[in-house]
Amino acid sequence: MTMLKGNLMFGQSGGPTSVINASAAGVFIEALKYGEIIEKVYGAENGIVGILNEKFFDIGQEDPKELEMLKYTPSSSLGSCRYKLASADKDDTDYKRLLEVFKKYNIRYFLYNGGNDSMDTCNKISKYMQKSGYECRVMGVPKTIDNDLFGTDHCPGFASAAKYIATTTMEVYQDARVYDTGMICVIEVMGRHAGWLTAATRLASEKGCGPDLIYLPEVAFDIDKMLSDVKAIYSKTGKVIIAVSEGIQTKEGLFIPELVAQDDVAVDSFGHKQLGGTATVLANYLKKETGAKVRGIELSLMQRCASHCASQTDIDESFLAGQTAVIKAIEGMTDFMVGFERAPGDEYRCEIKMIPLNDVANTEKKVPLEWINEDGNFVLDGFVKYALPLIKEETQQIKVDGLPRFANLKKIRV
Amino acid sequence: MTMLKGNLMFGQSGGPTSVINASAAGVFIEALKYGEIIEKVYGAENGIVGILNEKFFDIGQEDPKELEMLKYTPSSSLGSCRYKLASADKDDTDYKRLLEVFKKYNIRYFLYNGGNDSMDTCNKISKYMQKSGYECRVMGVPKTIDNDLFGTDHCPGFASAAKYIATTTMEVYQDARVYDTGMICVIEVMGRHAGWLTAATRLASEKGCGPDLIYLPEVAFDIDKMLSDVKAIYSKTGKVIIAVSEGIQTKEGLFIPELVAQDDVAVDSFGHKQLGGTATVLANYLKKETGAKVRGIELSLMQRCASHCASQTDIDESFLAGQTAVIKAIEGMTDFMVGFERAPGDEYRCEIKMIPLNDVANTEKKVPLEWINEDGNFVLDGFVKYALPLIKEETQQIKVDGLPRFANLKKIRV
Repeated sequence: MTMLKGNLMFGQSGGPTSVINASAAGVFIEALKYGEIIEKVYGAENGIVGILNEKFFDIGQEDPKELEMLKYTPSSSLGSCRYKLASADKDDTDYKRLLEVFKKYNIRYFLYNGGNDSMDTCNKISKYMQKSGYECRVMGVPKTIDNDLFGTDHCPGFASAAKYIATTTMEVYQDARVYDTGMICVIEVMGRHAGWLTAATRLASEKGCGPDLIYLPEVAFDIDKMLSDVKAIYSKTGKVIIAVSEGIQTKEGLFIPELVAQDDVAVDSFGHKQLGGTATVLANYLKKETGAKVRGIELSLMQRCASHCASQTDIDESFLAGQTAVIKAIEGMTDFMVGFERAPGDEYRCEIKMIPLNDVANTEKKVPLEWINEDGNFVLDGFVKYALPLIKEETQQIKVDGLPRFANLKKIRV
Repeated sequence: MTMLKGNLMFGQSGGPTSVINASAAGVFIEALKYGEIIEKVYGAENGIVGILNEKFFDIGQEDPKELEMLKYTPSSSLGSCRYKLASADKDDTDYKRLLEVFKKYNIRYFLYNGGNDSMDTCNKISKYMQKSGYECRVMGVPKTIDNDLFGTDHCPGFASAAKYIATTTMEVYQDARVYDTGMICVIEVMGRHAGWLTAATRLASEKGCGPDLIYLPEVAFDIDKMLSDVKAIYSKTGKVIIAVSEGIQTKEGLFIPELVAQDDVAVDSFGHKQLGGTATVLANYLKKETGAKVRGIELSLMQRCASHCASQTDIDESFLAGQTAVIKAIEGMTDFMVGFERAPGDEYRCEIKMIPLNDVANTEKKVPLEWINEDGNFVLDGFVKYALPLIKEETQQIKVDGLPRFANLKKIRV
């Protein structure tokens, strides 16, 4: 073990999840144990943007009980960003500035929590620091509801979103069958390129309360085929539940709002067309084509922030990812992302697997095609076996007056 | 006590809630105890429509454990309807048919579970049976997320919806503040005429994670005033959360989708306008007027079926309402709805209060104006004190594999 003394900087980046703060808790609580090595633990305000602007918080001044509460607080408590670093070869302004800040505050540990783009950022910073000869251990902590990070069995944040989506789909299924009249319901789930979250609706089908049809972006979407599938089910049962990923597109690369002629859409008083999202557009299309009552439901922000329905397995693993990043960095590792793999055997057990940042950056992992049926309109058992163990445990979130108790951070600026 | 021997018919009517089946459980489990008096317990398929069509289930053949599970199963397990009975003076066809079915199956206890329209149905049937000289004890079991039934402190179904809405608002609040850029978020909540559900977002504000502005249908909506309120907050904090009821309207009586989009609005069989799109329309308007990033979120069906986030207090009270209807009917009462009132004292305790159906039918209870601020854009402490005790307890819903376990009824037709 090469002892490297200095301060630690942690940042949150990209879209929020229910459990991104659980990783923050893991980093902070673990890092604060090593006062001999890590003198100060900093949290960047709005990720890399906060570092560039020298805006960060002194985590050592926070109440340890509140840091513990971060496990059950959704979204990014430090604030996030969607800031893309240029390639250092083309424009090294930001990198110089980062190095300046790192030197000024003696940052020797840099941990960055995010998805694909953030791991790219993390990788670029890692390589620049190496090139500059500034000793700094850089670690990526994974996070994405999209579950599309390369090299890891699954990503912190996915399971909680999946649990919410499957649960909500089961409930909507019950609701949508209540009347003696026909009903078609289109549920729109997040996921631009990878269908992991939409596939999670399949877990509801496993319990007998799920969609009849599931469309993922991994397979080219054929609207005529979908219409005939819907009509076939509707004529038999009078009820159809459809789950669609927001990112589905035709083989020509058209997204749904681009595909469906929206000549009959409402126009507001300014003369602007009220263009809907995928669920609304598909719902309007199906209403027109079938004459049935149709409802479009967008799970919107709720699917990524519904911490009241988070998976405790996900919370614990997210915490572990943060904790592990600190431990590995202190041990001397750098330039890696913490990943997960399943221990062999039937019982689900999650083990740590360190993945080089280079391998992770900008590589997307999609739902394997062998988990999608031949017709491209349903998800197969392989996915159920994969996902079910991840969502099993209930969150231990503390409630006050029946409502979630989130962390209250003092956020004392450095 | 006048002993009346015969069979019992129970029906579910109107929009579903998370706990309407808890009342069904209360009715069924209680009624099945009185085999000496109530020989058969029937559940109507799709409410009054099922009775007219002689479609009902023999509840005595269900597994008692599954009846217990109804407490935690959202929506209407028997099926619901939105069927409007004509006035018997004008057209007594349906009434004659009902009487015929009641006689044929010796229905001496008729319990109907629903909101305003359903209590009107229940009242009409009660009066017709009296007039016909057919002895049948008729009881209304209240149900509505809208919380707008007259004479009762609150309605089964409201608290669970309120708990979900407040929880979700707290989570969306966290999510909507994550970036260092401006953000306006419009949350649309159900409620055509009464703002109880939208007021529930105020509970999130009580916990520091709620809307800045709340608009209920009880107060005329002024879009210019709203815009200046939004701009004022946005210029100070860069973040605005707005909660709006789907039913808000201008003093001229225009709903938001009518105010900006001129298309005809669909009407259901009760003549209610099929609203919706308020969040989207307002979000587009605010985007254009402020230039800010704006997101519209519709809580859609989730707010009325999210049983995973139900209030156990609500579940228990809904069960009690069903149970009480049976007990009171057996004791000889008829033509009443079961209602609630608060026991005196600081500690919340719910007591039964029987309300004549005549008083309930078609009378709407709105949010008291003294609980709305003078500007008409926020909800006051009085509501918090009223609502908080109702949402306090967590559901004891059973999970299997981390997903809800709903009741499996055999539904054996009579």
